[in-house]
Amino acid sequence: MNIRSYTFEEYVDRVKSFHGFAAPGVVIGGFMVELAYQHLPEGGLFNAVCETAKCLPDAIQLLTSCTVGNGRLTVVNLGRYAMAFYDKSKGEGIRVFLNPTKLETWPEIKSWFFKMKPKKEQDYPILMKQLKEAGTSICSVEQVKIARHFLEKKRRGEIAICPCCKEAYPLADGAICLGCQDEAPYMMTKITNHSRATHKSTSLKYRNSKK
Amino acid sequence: MNIRSYTFEEYVDRVKSFHGFAAPGVVIGGFMVELAYQHLPEGGLFNAVCETAKCLPDAIQLLTSCTVGNGRLTVVNLGRYAMAFYDKSKGEGIRVFLNPTKLETWPEIKSWFFKMKPKKEQDYPILMKQLKEAGTSICSVEQVKIARHFLEKKRRGEIAICPCCKEAYPLADGAICLGCQDEAPYMMTKITNHSRATHKSTSLKYRNSKK
Repeated sequence: MNIRSYTFEEYVDRVKSFHGFAAPGVVIGGFMVELAYQHLPEGGLFNAVCETAKCLPDAIQLLTSCTVGNGRLTVVNLGRYAMAFYDKSKGEGIRVFLNPTKLETWPEIKSWFFKMKPKKEQDYPILMKQLKEAGTSICSVEQVKIARHFLEKKRRGEIAICPCCKEAYPLADGAICLGCQDEAPYMMTKITNHSRATHKSTSLKYRNSKK
Repeated sequence: MNIRSYTFEEYVDRVKSFHGFAAPGVVIGGFMVELAYQHLPEGGLFNAVCETAKCLPDAIQLLTSCTVGNGRLTVVNLGRYAMAFYDKSKGEGIRVFLNPTKLETWPEIKSWFFKMKPKKEQDYPILMKQLKEAGTSICSVEQVKIARHFLEKKRRGEIAICPCCKEAYPLADGAICLGCQDEAPYMMTKITNHSRATHKSTSLKYRNSKK
């Protein structure tokens, strides 16, 4: 069974090159994309929702024109092994999910998916063999209608300079940017060779300091 | 100025192929990755944080081994045009941001970045010319230390079957999955050719229905 325009082996090679290794999740993701496209009108332009950040977004980015950066792939982390493709004007689409009831005949896939064995006890060659044989058969398909609020284009609105970090940010986020509202994942930043407008020294600058 | 191992033109071709078109943001993102790597120890393995979902994640995915699906690129939407690469064991890294104070000599870049003109009035060839000439010079670099909570590996824990949708989900999310906790972006789903264990018909099924 092919995965879009690729043979199984060609797809696995692409996964290795993009994802870093032939992760079982990205392989399954390839079959999920294939199954979705079998149910979508030919030649249409679709956007994607991915219900997990694990592996599946890379299958979508490898096989379709939807990427995180072009805004046509949105990861909504629901913890489910599922993805949906939809027509953004009507919101009508196809959702594909890995169906647990279909894993009974594929013990190595089931064991991997439900984390029933430690990683080192998994038999990777058998897992890959089962994935190739199972193809799209372990997945199910549903028609979906995307909620209106999700389809609405989010406009950034006016861009301002944050009085705290001096970087550009969407004014709609508040008087200071979200990074300076304690949402940045940094403990501290230290200016190096390129100074900010108001920070000419190389001294440590603690973000969100109220001093 | 090269962008990692590519000439400007080669990189622009890669952007077109992955992102769909040569978006100015992905082009700038390429220079941001280049600048970050000029300040990172050679040969190290780094994870990435991207502070916007617009364009920049695609530059990171094109030029580094960090992707959304392999978990080495995290988008933390702070609305800032910035990215950071860090060593995940120590949390030490380099943050690069587009510095608004450096845009004064590049009117077309400034006008695009601050959305000062409607899209159709933008001069795309001049914008691309200025981006190529400006290279990394419109960006600034900082050392960052990633917050500990961000570095901790999030384990999914036990996987269960959601009693509502019958799909697998992380039990830590609650008694039912997040999708059935009203977080799914769908108005409705309709079972098609592949039935769920408990839904053999093709009748409409409204998610989260409390009936």
